[in-house]
Amino acid sequence: MKTYLDCIPCFLRLTLEQGRLLVGDEIVHRELMNEAAKLVLRTSLGSTPPEMVKEMQAVIRRRFPGCDPYKIVKDKSNRRAMELYPMLKEKVASSGDSLLTAVELAIAGNVIDYAAKNNLNVEQEIQAILTGSFSVGQKTVFEYDLFRKDLAEARTILYLADNAGEIVFDRILIEEIGIGREVIVAVRDKPILNDATMEDAVFCGIDKISRVISSGVDAPGTVLAYCSEEFLKIFKRADMVISKGQGNYEALTEAPRGIFFLFKVKCPVIARHAGAQLGDIVLKRI
Amino acid sequence: MKTYLDCIPCFLRLTLEQGRLLVGDEIVHRELMNEAAKLVLRTSLGSTPPEMVKEMQAVIRRRFPGCDPYKIVKDKSNRRAMELYPMLKEKVASSGDSLLTAVELAIAGNVIDYAAKNNLNVEQEIQAILTGSFSVGQKTVFEYDLFRKDLAEARTILYLADNAGEIVFDRILIEEIGIGREVIVAVRDKPILNDATMEDAVFCGIDKISRVISSGVDAPGTVLAYCSEEFLKIFKRADMVISKGQGNYEALTEAPRGIFFLFKVKCPVIARHAGAQLGDIVLKRI
Repeated sequence: MKTYLDCIPCFLRLTLEQGRLLVGDEIVHRELMNEAAKLVLRTSLGSTPPEMVKEMQAVIRRRFPGCDPYKIVKDKSNRRAMELYPMLKEKVASSGDSLLTAVELAIAGNVIDYAAKNNLNVEQEIQAILTGSFSVGQKTVFEYDLFRKDLAEARTILYLADNAGEIVFDRILIEEIGIGREVIVAVRDKPILNDATMEDAVFCGIDKISRVISSGVDAPGTVLAYCSEEFLKIFKRADMVISKGQGNYEALTEAPRGIFFLFKVKCPVIARHAGAQLGDIVLKRI
Repeated sequence: MKTYLDCIPCFLRLTLEQGRLLVGDEIVHRELMNEAAKLVLRTSLGSTPPEMVKEMQAVIRRRFPGCDPYKIVKDKSNRRAMELYPMLKEKVASSGDSLLTAVELAIAGNVIDYAAKNNLNVEQEIQAILTGSFSVGQKTVFEYDLFRKDLAEARTILYLADNAGEIVFDRILIEEIGIGREVIVAVRDKPILNDATMEDAVFCGIDKISRVISSGVDAPGTVLAYCSEEFLKIFKRADMVISKGQGNYEALTEAPRGIFFLFKVKCPVIARHAGAQLGDIVLKRI
């Protein structure tokens, strides 16, 4: 998916968010915003949003080399999600359609990330999930039957993870689809935003239930042009690829193979592109 | 309220929105965004958000002198809201607490504007209002008792309008509070975003139920420094001032008199400032 002009305000917002996570000085925040604005003036918007975010990240990296602005946020998300893990497992075990419940919980993880970014009450969202009053959003594009059918025939699955914390909710789905199949989970190569890396995957025990690899990418989406050879080989050969989150969707809509995308629609540009509405959940094969 | 760095992405978003309303050419949209980004680099953020939006408006005005990007949107909002008017009146007439219902409907108008700006389904929102399943949001800051008490003692009320379309919902409240009182309604002096002007007020029949004046301001908020002498005299002398929408809140939080603010919380900056959460409705006296 190409980068739209609508993405520019978001790039600036991300720069400000990271500035605030790194330092309390408003003058520095302003300088970072100005640097980002200058970069916007120079850029051609010729690539996908995750590639653009990677480029814009230069503003943060120049000023704070080696820093990971989301480290504390990610650790907290992982810990809180791991506390929920036993209850999430229980929900799947007691469900009439355990696969559907696992898919819904994987989306729930994406919703919580959304809540965190939009100042909504994360604990309230979690309580809603645990008490069953949780609503995942409208399912305007939700190809669950196709998903179940392809899954029945798949022996190897590549699962593209999204964010820290959320990855615990992914673990529920990975364990469900991993019965009798090989699942390989791909994470980002280096910290970028609050995306899950190998460290997060290990903390959340994903390495105990499946093979975890780095995609080789440090953009907030699996941009194939940056991927490692190891990843590309698996990407090509896997019977099924499940891609989680908007960033991976933005990076992979033109990919040369079938992929199941699973995400919460968090921005109007993606809504238009996916034929859905803001707030909807999408399970879509491209 | 001062302008925060968080407002900058919104200023750019508003510029893009207007560019798209005015012309289909993406190259022009990009040029407008670049102009706006350059203006951001130069500006000191020393004034309130409505003043900043007025300044940023120079980018649109230079390129499209005399144009009103929101003209069609406003006309459509006015017409659709006027169609609803009889049903809204009926709702108030059949309510156990007609003042509360009128206040809630005034907020409903603000919600519909929000829905329109965020790609939500406006007709769905309207249906929800008419069938009674409408939820105005959490009332964390909702000083209704104080509002009713002050209203009982007031003889003259200045009502600061917000958007086109929404002003029909305001009319419901103005008619309710206008029984036995003089209500003066203030609108923007010239078109700015989708804010209500004299033309909108007349189309929606506000001039038939109350005196309508221009505030003298063409910013998207009642910035006192720009107001006409006529307005300021009324602002000073009115027993009660009711201010609708976020823009008027941003402009008037430091005003030298008591004001009742009535709005839906649409951005995290305002949420923090008002001690509320995103999506809440606020009725607050400052």
